[in-house]
Amino acid sequence: MHNPSQQNYIQQLSIDCVIFGYHDKQLKVLIPKLNFNGDFWAVPGGFVYQDEDIDKAADRILQERTGITEIYLEQFHVFGKAARNSQKFIDRLISLNPDMLGDELIVKAEYEWFARRFVSIGYYALVDINKVIPQKIDLDDSVEWYNIKDLPEMIIDHNEIVIKALETLRLNLDEKLIAFNLLPETFTMREVQELYETIFDKPFARNNFQKMILDLDVLERLEKKFTGAANKAPYLYRFRK
Amino acid sequence: MHNPSQQNYIQQLSIDCVIFGYHDKQLKVLIPKLNFNGDFWAVPGGFVYQDEDIDKAADRILQERTGITEIYLEQFHVFGKAARNSQKFIDRLISLNPDMLGDELIVKAEYEWFARRFVSIGYYALVDINKVIPQKIDLDDSVEWYNIKDLPEMIIDHNEIVIKALETLRLNLDEKLIAFNLLPETFTMREVQELYETIFDKPFARNNFQKMILDLDVLERLEKKFTGAANKAPYLYRFRK
Repeated sequence: MHNPSQQNYIQQLSIDCVIFGYHDKQLKVLIPKLNFNGDFWAVPGGFVYQDEDIDKAADRILQERTGITEIYLEQFHVFGKAARNSQKFIDRLISLNPDMLGDELIVKAEYEWFARRFVSIGYYALVDINKVIPQKIDLDDSVEWYNIKDLPEMIIDHNEIVIKALETLRLNLDEKLIAFNLLPETFTMREVQELYETIFDKPFARNNFQKMILDLDVLERLEKKFTGAANKAPYLYRFRK
Repeated sequence: MHNPSQQNYIQQLSIDCVIFGYHDKQLKVLIPKLNFNGDFWAVPGGFVYQDEDIDKAADRILQERTGITEIYLEQFHVFGKAARNSQKFIDRLISLNPDMLGDELIVKAEYEWFARRFVSIGYYALVDINKVIPQKIDLDDSVEWYNIKDLPEMIIDHNEIVIKALETLRLNLDEKLIAFNLLPETFTMREVQELYETIFDKPFARNNFQKMILDLDVLERLEKKFTGAANKAPYLYRFRK
């Protein structure tokens, strides 16, 4: 809620971003907590300037919290129920933070602007978690990675937005070969399998999985990974773009 | 452009629908031609009422031109470039239809409303072409099925919208088992294959194709189709929902 010059934005349109990272057999989502009384969490979001492409707006919003550019990013769903608005959230925010009302942040016009029905374009992003240093913006108390199985309760419909993003990620995984965006530059076949098992939340048979991935014909085999035990060392692979 | 009570709609947000039908080995798109001088074609579109779900708005827009409800319908992409507006189209429309300016339709406020940048949510619909009787609304000169390989040149970015819808249809075809929405109630395996060949614009090997479709385990085999030549008669199938 950083003082949007309201006329510079498209009205009643927002962008919400689900940023996925992967680490240690856990699929994670980057979630800021707002710097107000009341424990408010929300996925990174924002509005679209009149002279800005929506994809650029999503880039900007992602960059604010991750510090990185050139992220794999994709629209996945528009959340557009008539009843979709922030009224409850804002009312609760004000009731727990009554000093806001004396603040220029929440003047009547702004309240009305924010509390209207918003259509929100959902984007999901896939990042190499090692490359992201979570960044706070003015409004944030913290910005942290949460295991997708253990998310905080977020404002408005943001928990549903994450669930829908995960469904889409699963659907797109093979078609679009995007899982490799979640891995570091080089990886073992076992690491790929663990990633898929985490995303789908189920085990795969090792031989079949390996064949399926190699059949995609998108990996380049590199030297063996140094483990100290030469004969058991697994090969490293790299995604061939 | 039927006199939108502008304050009843969400500003700068539109919906555009690509309605696919299939007939005689041709994938077709239902396209209205506007009732003005100048040969203007556009996919069926409209705006979203303040108190209307976006999916409901898409239903309404589809029903206007097809006369049917309960259509398979899916959001596929949001078109949101900053430069996306109707200015060129409207200017050309007015220049070829100067009497419009004397009309209450195009008063200055309406011009400004329509000529602004719009973010458009694209939906595609799959219909059984036999069930649709194309319907004209006030603005239409005609509403006809066009072969996707022979589309008229449409306004704004509507040709791109159709191309993107086709790409998404191809991506989703297997994952979501939606092709059967384009077929009549019962069909032969050959008809399914012809449909897939048309959508992908390439041939499939008969045995592999048949195996792939049967492996989906979504078809129910019925009696043989009556052709007069009993021993060569193909089986009929039905999609099991």
